[in-house]
Amino acid sequence: MTRPSTALLTDHYELTMIAAARTHPAASRPCVFEVFARRLPDGRRYGVVGGTGRLVDALADFRFGADELAAVSGFLDGDTLQWLADYRFAGDIDGYREGELYFPGSPILTVRAPFADAVILETLILSILNHDSAIASAAARMVCAAGSRPIIEMGSRRTHERAAVASARAAYLAGLTATSNLEAARTYGVPSAGTAAHAFTLLFTGSGGPDEPAAFRAQVDRLGPGTTLLVDTYDITRGVANAVEAAGPELGAVRIDSGDLGILARQVRDQLDGLGARKTKIVVSGDLDEYAIASLRAEPVDVYGVGTSLVTGSGAPTAGMVYKLVEIDGIPVEKRSSHKVSHGGAKSAVRLARPSGTVVEEVLHPSGTPAPDSAGHTLAPLQTALIRDGGPVDALPSLDDARDHLRAALVTLPWEGLGLSHGEPAIPTRYAF
Amino acid sequence: MTRPSTALLTDHYELTMIAAARTHPAASRPCVFEVFARRLPDGRRYGVVGGTGRLVDALADFRFGADELAAVSGFLDGDTLQWLADYRFAGDIDGYREGELYFPGSPILTVRAPFADAVILETLILSILNHDSAIASAAARMVCAAGSRPIIEMGSRRTHERAAVASARAAYLAGLTATSNLEAARTYGVPSAGTAAHAFTLLFTGSGGPDEPAAFRAQVDRLGPGTTLLVDTYDITRGVANAVEAAGPELGAVRIDSGDLGILARQVRDQLDGLGARKTKIVVSGDLDEYAIASLRAEPVDVYGVGTSLVTGSGAPTAGMVYKLVEIDGIPVEKRSSHKVSHGGAKSAVRLARPSGTVVEEVLHPSGTPAPDSAGHTLAPLQTALIRDGGPVDALPSLDDARDHLRAALVTLPWEGLGLSHGEPAIPTRYAF
Repeated sequence: MTRPSTALLTDHYELTMIAAARTHPAASRPCVFEVFARRLPDGRRYGVVGGTGRLVDALADFRFGADELAAVSGFLDGDTLQWLADYRFAGDIDGYREGELYFPGSPILTVRAPFADAVILETLILSILNHDSAIASAAARMVCAAGSRPIIEMGSRRTHERAAVASARAAYLAGLTATSNLEAARTYGVPSAGTAAHAFTLLFTGSGGPDEPAAFRAQVDRLGPGTTLLVDTYDITRGVANAVEAAGPELGAVRIDSGDLGILARQVRDQLDGLGARKTKIVVSGDLDEYAIASLRAEPVDVYGVGTSLVTGSGAPTAGMVYKLVEIDGIPVEKRSSHKVSHGGAKSAVRLARPSGTVVEEVLHPSGTPAPDSAGHTLAPLQTALIRDGGPVDALPSLDDARDHLRAALVTLPWEGLGLSHGEPAIPTRYAF
Repeated sequence: MTRPSTALLTDHYELTMIAAARTHPAASRPCVFEVFARRLPDGRRYGVVGGTGRLVDALADFRFGADELAAVSGFLDGDTLQWLADYRFAGDIDGYREGELYFPGSPILTVRAPFADAVILETLILSILNHDSAIASAAARMVCAAGSRPIIEMGSRRTHERAAVASARAAYLAGLTATSNLEAARTYGVPSAGTAAHAFTLLFTGSGGPDEPAAFRAQVDRLGPGTTLLVDTYDITRGVANAVEAAGPELGAVRIDSGDLGILARQVRDQLDGLGARKTKIVVSGDLDEYAIASLRAEPVDVYGVGTSLVTGSGAPTAGMVYKLVEIDGIPVEKRSSHKVSHGGAKSAVRLARPSGTVVEEVLHPSGTPAPDSAGHTLAPLQTALIRDGGPVDALPSLDDARDHLRAALVTLPWEGLGLSHGEPAIPTRYAF
């Protein structure tokens, strides 16, 4: 199937700007645009770059076909429409790797192209990076809170149906182990998981009332004793007994979706052990966020399921990244009016680390100048080539590569930067200008 | 172009439940599922149903083709795969009209079909209604705060690229006048708008420094003097002077995107009037939410632009709706475990109003029973037919119909229910069971 065009996932004003600039010599001047976040969400210590892989795909589909041109012909002149019809991004894009940590000011993406060629991508670039980075950043905190315990993403129903797919991808990137979302499994290869909801147990209600044992038997018959049985539709203690009765002590797991999960997990663990189901795992779900996950650290929980808080970025549903023109023909430019100070000029970024590997600061310096003196620290450049002459570079990192990269990057943070409590960014950003 | 299948925008467990239930007689029993929100977001007085129109479209594309079947063949048996291949929703769906107000417990959507036929739609239905209702509900508050002043939606860059399209649609439904999003204009006919960003003005920087007059001239040359010029890239007072110089007193509007918008609007109004540009409008944007809009009520602002707060639901990015099995073969069912009490049985809903038109309560009563005594109030049923025998009913309301319906519905609320301050739902929900 041909993939749909992404060209209209764009703001009206990008095209009117192009129309107004196009006939002017200024429009052909080489420009540099940068994506960065002025700040992290309230009290967060780090952000996680997400969406880079999706962005590279979406750029390939950014084409104005006949339908797209017809849709914008009402407010554009013929020359501009022809320019759009011919448009193929032919510039260069560099960026932080997907799965890289970022901090306030980090130049996460750098687009080099003539003005019109670059400005037209603003909305699409920001939509993808703002959404996916918000989800990945929240998810990474949940993974840290869960320690070695796996987390399953099950929030599709709480967000836009296509955002759900991207959320599942971003969550996997951040270290969650599986998703409920089948489109994410198909499109991105994220492992999918799930067994049954309360409705399944309720279905077996007859004229004699509820029949949880019949529901559990039907599930075990089809999905095997290794399945996960949802035990809190009626009485949980009765549910656990019915579950082990139906599946035997080889029962894979029970899921608890309501109530005081810590207390219930302990009771259920004792009950399962008493029934000989010592290897049966306990899955908990129900309005969990990173704080609730952390609060269950001492309880006998084996797997977490997270939904709403994951797909809404746990209080920060957008990453607040902006796309700013920073350089024209080698001349640094910046907005000068009140409250929104930008640093003009294209920036290179390096992260300095102690010999132990712990990072100490991120340094931004003018592109094309040597990196600052590292003063005995190791120094890692943060930007990599993503697009050259309009096409993706060879061997772009995969989603699994991004996942591995993040896991390694988190280990480099000072330990207090990994905590859930609010505070300053884990490392400072320094402008060596 | 064939529209893509929506069938995998679904949770893994919906399909394993179907596999487990399918061979059992229970699977063919007629079921009723209801969508409702247990509560409104923190302190909100009402919710707005959004997404119904999108849902009807998405249901038509809910088909398991060869690609979709291949994607799920790893965890399903052959009989279930064949059932999916043959699946066409053939049941009935009733619901609140799009643009209708809702309150805690309101049965916003009612799906009648055999268990497997209905449960498979859970994730898609909730994704669409939860997202679009969250946006529409936030947007309606902004429209109330703005009074008669128009609001333009410009938040695409702050949310997932496809959620942005749905957000623009939901915002228009709620009474916003236009969107920046071109795909929403193409797909849903929402009027689109926009002129230029700071990057456009910065582009005209030369070796002699910034040249705002040249930028404004280029924009007016192409877009005419009725355009909106963005005046806060450098000094705002200078920007306003340059704007009127470039376009003359017929200048359509100036936009201010930063700073203390109230003070600046007054200064700019005085300056424009002094320059003879008395009809030039003032557009303000920059992190506006419903409270900021209300705080500008006394200032000379003509148009608001909203972004982040709109597309993130202004603190409530999901509506928290659930999809619950409430009746099987005429038998009411409900989950009984702690903390999540549901009311079993299919529900009909009516809203009672005084002769003046002001609503006083919403009453839910068992479907098939007469509506409760109205005690002198007028009584309006809230559920309408959406899908019959799997297909949309004739003359489904359009997006404009939904917009009109909401405008009329808001007028029926008690005046305190329209305020921005936190409180109880504007009217109580009563269960006449």
